[in-house]
Amino acid sequence: MATALLNPALQGERYELHSPTAMPRAAGFLWNQRMMIQSTCRGYAVAQFMQPEPAKYAYAPNLEAKTFMQPEQPYYAHHPGRFIYIKDEDTGEIFSAPYEPVRAPYEKFLFSVGKSDLRWSLQALGIEIEMTLLLPVADVVELWQVRITNRSGRDRRLSVYPYFPVGYMSWMNQSAEYRADLGGVIANCVTPYQKVADYFKHKNFKDKTFFLHEQPPVAWETKQETFEGEGGLHNPSALQQDMLANGDARYETPAAIVQYRLELADQAGQDYRFIFGPAFDEAEIRHLRKTYLHADGFARACADYAAYIASGSGCLKIETPDAELDNFVNHWLPRQVFYHGDVNRLTTDPQTRNYLQDNMGMSFIKPAVTRAAFIHALSQQESSGAMPDGVLLVEGAELKYINQIPHTDHCVWLPVCLKAYLDETNDYALLQEVVPGHDGKSLSVFARITLAMRWLLQARDHRGLSFIAQGDWCDPMNMVGYKGKGVSGWLSVATAYALNLWAEVCGTTTQTELQQEFLAGAREINAAVNQYLWDGNWFGRGITDDDVVFGISKDKEGRIFLNPQSWAILGGAADEGQRQKMIAAIEQQLETPYGVAMLAPAYTAMRDDVGRVTQKHPGSAENGSVYNHAAVFYIYSLFSIAEKERAYRLLRQMIPGPEEADYLQRGQLPVYIPNYYRGAYYQYPRTAGRSSQLFNTGTVSWVYRCLVEGVFGLQGCHEGLRINPQLPSTWNTAKAVREFRGARFLVNITRGLADTVQVYCDGMLLPDNCVRQIQAGCEYSLDVLLARDD
Amino acid sequence: MATALLNPALQGERYELHSPTAMPRAAGFLWNQRMMIQSTCRGYAVAQFMQPEPAKYAYAPNLEAKTFMQPEQPYYAHHPGRFIYIKDEDTGEIFSAPYEPVRAPYEKFLFSVGKSDLRWSLQALGIEIEMTLLLPVADVVELWQVRITNRSGRDRRLSVYPYFPVGYMSWMNQSAEYRADLGGVIANCVTPYQKVADYFKHKNFKDKTFFLHEQPPVAWETKQETFEGEGGLHNPSALQQDMLANGDARYETPAAIVQYRLELADQAGQDYRFIFGPAFDEAEIRHLRKTYLHADGFARACADYAAYIASGSGCLKIETPDAELDNFVNHWLPRQVFYHGDVNRLTTDPQTRNYLQDNMGMSFIKPAVTRAAFIHALSQQESSGAMPDGVLLVEGAELKYINQIPHTDHCVWLPVCLKAYLDETNDYALLQEVVPGHDGKSLSVFARITLAMRWLLQARDHRGLSFIAQGDWCDPMNMVGYKGKGVSGWLSVATAYALNLWAEVCGTTTQTELQQEFLAGAREINAAVNQYLWDGNWFGRGITDDDVVFGISKDKEGRIFLNPQSWAILGGAADEGQRQKMIAAIEQQLETPYGVAMLAPAYTAMRDDVGRVTQKHPGSAENGSVYNHAAVFYIYSLFSIAEKERAYRLLRQMIPGPEEADYLQRGQLPVYIPNYYRGAYYQYPRTAGRSSQLFNTGTVSWVYRCLVEGVFGLQGCHEGLRINPQLPSTWNTAKAVREFRGARFLVNITRGLADTVQVYCDGMLLPDNCVRQIQAGCEYSLDVLLARDD
Repeated sequence: MATALLNPALQGERYELHSPTAMPRAAGFLWNQRMMIQSTCRGYAVAQFMQPEPAKYAYAPNLEAKTFMQPEQPYYAHHPGRFIYIKDEDTGEIFSAPYEPVRAPYEKFLFSVGKSDLRWSLQALGIEIEMTLLLPVADVVELWQVRITNRSGRDRRLSVYPYFPVGYMSWMNQSAEYRADLGGVIANCVTPYQKVADYFKHKNFKDKTFFLHEQPPVAWETKQETFEGEGGLHNPSALQQDMLANGDARYETPAAIVQYRLELADQAGQDYRFIFGPAFDEAEIRHLRKTYLHADGFARACADYAAYIASGSGCLKIETPDAELDNFVNHWLPRQVFYHGDVNRLTTDPQTRNYLQDNMGMSFIKPAVTRAAFIHALSQQESSGAMPDGVLLVEGAELKYINQIPHTDHCVWLPVCLKAYLDETNDYALLQEVVPGHDGKSLSVFARITLAMRWLLQARDHRGLSFIAQGDWCDPMNMVGYKGKGVSGWLSVATAYALNLWAEVCGTTTQTELQQEFLAGAREINAAVNQYLWDGNWFGRGITDDDVVFGISKDKEGRIFLNPQSWAILGGAADEGQRQKMIAAIEQQLETPYGVAMLAPAYTAMRDDVGRVTQKHPGSAENGSVYNHAAVFYIYSLFSIAEKERAYRLLRQMIPGPEEADYLQRGQLPVYIPNYYRGAYYQYPRTAGRSSQLFNTGTVSWVYRCLVEGVFGLQGCHEGLRINPQLPSTWNTAKAVREFRGARFLVNITRGLADTVQVYCDGMLLPDNCVRQIQAGCEYSLDVLLARDD
Repeated sequence: MATALLNPALQGERYELHSPTAMPRAAGFLWNQRMMIQSTCRGYAVAQFMQPEPAKYAYAPNLEAKTFMQPEQPYYAHHPGRFIYIKDEDTGEIFSAPYEPVRAPYEKFLFSVGKSDLRWSLQALGIEIEMTLLLPVADVVELWQVRITNRSGRDRRLSVYPYFPVGYMSWMNQSAEYRADLGGVIANCVTPYQKVADYFKHKNFKDKTFFLHEQPPVAWETKQETFEGEGGLHNPSALQQDMLANGDARYETPAAIVQYRLELADQAGQDYRFIFGPAFDEAEIRHLRKTYLHADGFARACADYAAYIASGSGCLKIETPDAELDNFVNHWLPRQVFYHGDVNRLTTDPQTRNYLQDNMGMSFIKPAVTRAAFIHALSQQESSGAMPDGVLLVEGAELKYINQIPHTDHCVWLPVCLKAYLDETNDYALLQEVVPGHDGKSLSVFARITLAMRWLLQARDHRGLSFIAQGDWCDPMNMVGYKGKGVSGWLSVATAYALNLWAEVCGTTTQTELQQEFLAGAREINAAVNQYLWDGNWFGRGITDDDVVFGISKDKEGRIFLNPQSWAILGGAADEGQRQKMIAAIEQQLETPYGVAMLAPAYTAMRDDVGRVTQKHPGSAENGSVYNHAAVFYIYSLFSIAEKERAYRLLRQMIPGPEEADYLQRGQLPVYIPNYYRGAYYQYPRTAGRSSQLFNTGTVSWVYRCLVEGVFGLQGCHEGLRINPQLPSTWNTAKAVREFRGARFLVNITRGLADTVQVYCDGMLLPDNCVRQIQAGCEYSLDVLLARDD
């Protein structure tokens, strides 16, 4: 691949790609409070909105399964997308923007992903097309701006055809027609349903898809098949006619296509605006038109949306020797954290562990959201203390997909995530909030988490190890313990970690007896884990229903798992000698150029006594993949034991680039961290490292935490802000601006000559590197001199 | 459309189409005991097999919904299909057979649908391609034969690339590779699953898709994306290379593509054989290869399959002035009836009414199958006498889709369908068979049907009309009676019909008291229907939960429904005066050039007190459609009252053609009767009459019955064979061969001069037109002289 083709250059806050073919799946995404759209450089798009369950307004060409959001979304000729065809009326030549469906040669191409818009700019046949997609903050509508400019040096006569396929809406009823009175194409359907009860849910559905134009066209087509004809999407028959046929679609696949005629002198241009989305009725369509479909409406939406994104910009701005890292951390990482905390992955029943971690991330952005989320989650705690598999967010929501499979780890995440919130806010008052449960009992947050810890303590077998049931977090094991006997090594050490964290909170709040109870529990579990699962160089992954220990050195496949090691470090099961052995084993067996794999060697077939991949992750792409959520915990554990070089190196691997070859291999712009990079590096080097293209992942709040608490060492504590940076040795200086408890800290880190870290706050040396009595509204200067060998 | 393009000519037992574009969806279908494939003239295919639920081995490019078989299947560029690309190695020109994906200009084209094979023959660039698809009787495997012949008058150098896309198999795991040892491409996946219990079902799934060749290729490709490249399916990038890249697919969309090099002198040809299908493991793949993948294997499979189809050729062969009718009735209609009775629509839980009617059709083909089906259905009767919504055919099957919605009409079909079986076989011994129920009780067939009749009698409201619950047969109403009060006019008159039929059986078996009980019940219902639902010119469709009568003259939409009229004629609710009014109203409001619509005017919006389309039929395409199953009952009722001209005219409308314009409008070859033709003839003439392309329909056994009992009047009865033909007046003669109770009747029908029908059996005039004491194994000559005005 020639370097000229690909140039994903930084440009302020945008990432840019100069070829539609170098990374064909490269995409950007926008979301607002009710919808999400992911759009590729070539023009394909996946969009969904909430009503209240995820729904579509642009559909596949067949009846698509309703399922959780798929990683590695397959694209194909008739995949939903947003396109503009251009025809030269003098020569009959055509091309399409941004690239699909015609795939014509282009004179220039730019896909530019912003934090609050997506832009394409390309030129073919001497005609430049600029397309911009905006979303408003709250309404479900795409705002499209298209500019056509003649760059050919001569007068041109063109036809311009926006082509927004609607797809196979429904087998119950679908149609489309042009409505001059509404100013566009309106497609109609009846959402399929089977049961009478569903009718009452569906009757308020937005079953219309509208495509509205600002400027009236000269002709239109609404039937997909007629548009394509025998020419096909790459050369639609309808474009060989002088005018579109003004057709309707009756039970036939709808599409929104209009035709403009344009005469452009050299360098002259023409702007168009369109809006596209779902609606309940014509009144709503008229309202959206009135609100948005004009220059003012677009401008206002754009400003409001930028402000909305800016409200989620996070608590850390950095300046390091690595400009690409800076850009990612200052703009894209908090945006992704904000997305998760803001809309909970646009599902109505997020997995409890995801909900807690996504909201943990909001501690660094909008802590009030985190606070409310904790209370909401705990209100769904079971009487036993167990947490449910998913948290229901709206009236009528149900546990779906993976949330119907019993997992046993959800309680662990309560103290693990709460710790970040308490560190960040010092809001111990939260613990005294009374939370009415759905069982009628009212208990404080503190009492509920204590109950959850005791539930974890009892959910163990005769050895003192934690039952795994049909799965625990992040590993592809659903058949280890489905008979009720199998145990999880990871969950055992994770339970110890949770208990220790909760003991710490008990200590801080002077509940000494409870503190001792949980410390003792953690010690007991760690002892059991060492007795039954230490394999000489690492901890085993678990013991099956049939009493088979697995994830150990004698296994041919699934010999070593990452999670038990990371959490044994965090939870204290591993002593220093064990840690060094584990780290060496991980380096040898799990590290790859694209990150740390979750297990190795990947299973090639089912092992009945060990379990197999479940639906919760992408099958074998997970089995052996670099699963970032697991990898980041290893990194977090490395920071916890000051293994800073390794920790930083692995953290940096998660962000694509900066080498072009790395972008190409991963196939993704660094505008988000995906949930996984494909693994099997040794078996399948061709595909290893490839991005899942899925931006839903619990990874990001932990990456942010690793940066705040680890690399920059600016971690809150009960007393204030504790400073302990762990810069990689290749950096001699770094700067940061840290927002913390209403104050702002301007941080300068440089390498010193002393043996220990020295921190000066507004010029005063801090005796224990902790800033106390922080005043909200104040600004502090922190000068940090790292120790000589740091 | 030029006539030359389209010529669906009869040729023995084949239907042929000379253009891939005139009727782009025109398709043929093959089935065997475990699979079904429907393939279009352009090469797209839908195939499924049973394991035991319907499954696929060639998938859509995205995650497709699992649902009942869709009518009007949408096709799109990446739809599954079977294709051969040809490249001229001297010029680089390409085309593909049969037409997709390249859609190149062709020199000739023929799509030929046989009863036991599908064939394409086409020529482009002077190269002729003949493709033939066969199935074996029992194995799930497609047998493809391809012949390439040089018709160009000069030597040619070609590359030949069979391209069998496999599609998006699974998000859990998918891959493909070329296996020289197995002789082809093997794609692998893990069927996605969520629950542990599913693993035990899935572990025996055929998760491999194989494409095997007889002759080794020179190169191959197994990754869809690499094959297409930027060229796209119409011009794959891989074809621009000298050789395919011998690539594998890892987590990527699999496809089976191989390359042959061929040098052909003028008129020289080359044969290839391939097999394609699913398999559990490599041993099965080797076994299928050994069994089929050679000339002998294909020849044996072809002969066996033809014998299998011939075993379902039915009890009637006709010779009339309408050659196209003869061909359809002698070959295609019994084949479609056989398909239904043989494999029960390839579902494991057919709707009870479908199961009974499909097996009723088998009375004319393999009555032993009908007998067993009755016993099987009755074994699932509920203690109350009610029949379940679906009949479970295999261990572990579940009621799905529409079968989860409570319908109240299933009992009606017991005597309605049994009547045909008894008439055909005189097997009254069946009634004494003891059927153990799943409630532990054992009752005779007679007792069970009697119980069902009493259940129908009690499932009525205070007016004596039948409750509708959430739906009854064939009308798009699911909200008329979901509160438990609404009643169905159709089900009421259908109940009367069922009771009268059962009373007749009771009479024949001298159960006089029961006979009187059911005759009285029928009279009572018919009186209630007349009291509450007669609207002056037709019967209303029902009364809602809220006491609103609908399907009546004052309604703006849904003013008249067909089913209540047809069944009032059959069940005796309508007197002669009423019948004439109803027939006139139907002619005026429901008859269209494509058949009799099910209701009119079509609803344009939900009417909450009347109900709306359900999922059981294709939404608004049903709402107002020519629903053939409803239409054939009207026809059957017309024969029952000797309205022969109208009955025949409407029956003939169901079979596409013979006018070319009619084929084109319907878009279907007359190789089956579809479940509906689109309606809304007055609102949407452009699409009216278009075939659903779905060959699953209860229509066909009734069409066959109309022909046997109505047109040819060769109906069995307790005494023997009763002769009463109802030929249309345009026919002066007709011949038939009727197989009946082991005997063969050679029937000559001609118009006579007498006032009544005269029947001569082997030259002897029959006093009451009934042949008695029929000897199995004998052949009888019947000369039928119709009455002068018949």
